[in-house]
Amino acid sequence: MDIKRHDPSKILSEAVEHGNTVYLAGIVADDPSQDVKGQTKQILDKIDRLLAKCGSHKSKVLSANIWVTDIKNRPAMNEVWTAWVDARNLPARACVEAKLADPRMLVEIMVVAAK
Amino acid sequence: MDIKRHDPSKILSEAVEHGNTVYLAGIVADDPSQDVKGQTKQILDKIDRLLAKCGSHKSKVLSANIWVTDIKNRPAMNEVWTAWVDARNLPARACVEAKLADPRMLVEIMVVAAK
Amino acid sequence: MDIKRHDPSKILSEAVEHGNTVYLAGIVADDPSQDVKGQTKQILDKIDRLLAKCGSHKSKVLSANIWVTDIKNRPAMNEVWTAWVDARNLPARACVEAKLADPRMLVEIMVVAAK
Repeated sequence: MDIKRHDPSKILSEAVEHGNTVYLAGIVADDPSQDVKGQTKQILDKIDRLLAKCGSHKSKVLSANIWVTDIKNRPAMNEVWTAWVDARNLPARACVEAKLADPRMLVEIMVVAAK
Repeated sequence: MDIKRHDPSKILSEAVEHGNTVYLAGIVADDPSQDVKGQTKQILDKIDRLLAKCGSHKSKVLSANIWVTDIKNRPAMNEVWTAWVDARNLPARACVEAKLADPRMLVEIMVVAAK
Repeated sequence: MDIKRHDPSKILSEAVEHGNTVYLAGIVADDPSQDVKGQTKQILDKIDRLLAKCGSHKSKVLSANIWVTDIKNRPAMNEVWTAWVDARNLPARACVEAKLADPRMLVEIMVVAAK
């Protein structure tokens, strides 16, 4: 099966296609000065753009891993998440607490999607 | 490839089928008053039920992510895990410590399986 | 699709093939007396060996999850990571902080690859 990689940095690709499956990197907010909701919105916008590049869409997300730096921020993240997801096509998901690369980052989301 | 989603809540599906691959949500215990072993048993029973809904089975689990809220509880979780898994068909696995959504939850398990 | 499992312990397989996709276990260093860079090197060497067993290769890694026990060790881990990865075939990746099974373990890496 064919592999296509998108938006490489020095250490990772933001998106990788393998046959009919798309693996995105753990996405964080470009502007970490925003609060949890603002960061989550930025992340989901970026995920929309990356999925589109791969010929996928949020209605085709299969699974999501979400990390919040403070589990108390889960409800605020969930508010933005719930407004974003396709309510008839919800992915499997886990959300746990973890420290992230930059202390200003409050949320990181990594998804696997179908094409 | 076909996508089928099972047992949706407001934020996620408990199970998603994509072709021959099944993605389950991070599963936690329904009764969080139990100890680590009791919670792990509940989780694995629920995973059995979800895999069955997708036409899969514990002998077909490919990969598992396990989070324990205290890494000291890993041996107790492992005891129940070892009794559950098909010893001739063991999945790839990682187990790390993380805080979970509800402080009473001690274990969360997320698996990918084949159909 | 065919499932092949490699190098089973009592609780997990080090590698699982499913059709054209390979799932590795979360790999840690065999010699935990080494520092972050030494442990990362050991882990990536072991990943090379496991991928080879499955007919895969680091140039075909699709996605990686990395856990470091202290997020301050991310740059040191990244140095070894960057020297290892195929710069023209970078995987999607997330790296977060988490406590691991053994307090001497400083890094754990789990990858999904194509065959």
